[in-house]
Amino acid sequence: MMILYYHPGGCSLADHIVLIETGLPYRLVKVERGKRTEDGRDFMTINPKGFIPALELDDGSVLTENLAILVYIAHQAGALLPSDGLDRWRALEATSFMTTEFHGNFRPFFHVDATHAERDKARKLLVKHFATIAGQLGDRPFLVGDRMTIADPYLVVMLMWAEKNEIEVPKRLNDYLAHMKTIPSVAKALTDEGLV
Amino acid sequence: MMILYYHPGGCSLADHIVLIETGLPYRLVKVERGKRTEDGRDFMTINPKGFIPALELDDGSVLTENLAILVYIAHQAGALLPSDGLDRWRALEATSFMTTEFHGNFRPFFHVDATHAERDKARKLLVKHFATIAGQLGDRPFLVGDRMTIADPYLVVMLMWAEKNEIEVPKRLNDYLAHMKTIPSVAKALTDEGLV
Ligand SMILES: N[C@@H](CCC(=O)N[C@@H](CS)C(=O)NCC(=O)O)C(=O)O
Ligand SMILES: N[C@@H](CCC(=O)N[C@@H](CS)C(=O)NCC(=O)O)C(=O)O
Repeated sequence: MMILYYHPGGCSLADHIVLIETGLPYRLVKVERGKRTEDGRDFMTINPKGFIPALELDDGSVLTENLAILVYIAHQAGALLPSDGLDRWRALEATSFMTTEFHGNFRPFFHVDATHAERDKARKLLVKHFATIAGQLGDRPFLVGDRMTIADPYLVVMLMWAEKNEIEVPKRLNDYLAHMKTIPSVAKALTDEGLV
Repeated sequence: MMILYYHPGGCSLADHIVLIETGLPYRLVKVERGKRTEDGRDFMTINPKGFIPALELDDGSVLTENLAILVYIAHQAGALLPSDGLDRWRALEATSFMTTEFHGNFRPFFHVDATHAERDKARKLLVKHFATIAGQLGDRPFLVGDRMTIADPYLVVMLMWAEKNEIEVPKRLNDYLAHMKTIPSVAKALTDEGLV
């Protein structure tokens, strides 16, 4: 059974949602501040880079990097990422946009030693990128095509971080987030991580 | 024929190498500072996010985000990214590590308005991440398995940026870069971009 190393409300929430949505068997292990797992192991021995998410595969290998983990789970399940066609590439593009331009620019908000100027610069970029995403979403329920892909759970996490850090996003994205939270897999992940 | 929008020595160099290495037909269009293409078009009409690389596909769609473009080209060619098995996931993981933790931390070195403190913080992280990659590479000629994958050309670009910005990397990585530069596809891309 796959094991997801996560931190409540962290970027691992995207993987958690995807695991539930695909129905694949998995187990969660929480990583506490200070990089101890809830069962008392040093997380650095599991992912020496120190980042969550990390996914332990059935053969004991540990896969890291959020995008790689999301694509891996989708591949195992044959769901949430079309195997070919333009929608596949649009979903991968959107997920990559999340990891590079959104996630990165949220970092100053998590680091206590970030300056006001750094947060300001990052906020401006985030506002711009959320506008891009809102335009891409348009009136559709999901970011790519007419079904959930791995890009949606990542966007959910980014929107929750925006809310927490009082970064204003277009109304369309607030509505999107509200709708996503009614989807059973999303609702269950939020409950399981103690976020609602 | 695919069109790669690039800037000499930019992160699009990875895609350029991969296009040559796979042997797929492509054409280059240079994007100048100020976001004009060399044939006089406004690049923002091609990629509204303003980033290179962008890849125009045979049907005229434009794919953005480096990782998505690299995976797309590999998929079309059936090369440089195994279609399954642990090496596929390791290559995707390494490429994602490049886009998130390396590329992002090079940004302060390209932005004239970045502070000394920002560059210092970024430099420390880069040094740490290059050490991780050197450990992963070990004695092998390529980052994953015994063949080039899409992760290698990206690492080449990151090492060239390190050199340019006087960021010290482990000797193993200097040797790796020197070896990679002898590979015909890499040598040709460097020549075509006017970098040697
Ligand atoms: N490149 C990694 C970054 C993951 C990441 O930044 N994770 C955060 C939580 S959302 C983390 O573990 N931070 C702890 C740390 O930086 O030490 C990925 O894409 O998975
Ligand atoms: N998220 C994009 C970032 C690409 C990127 O940062 N490209 C740089 C060149 S290496 C660029 O176009 N910079 C110009 C700008 O930021 O306006 C990707 O992964 O492709």
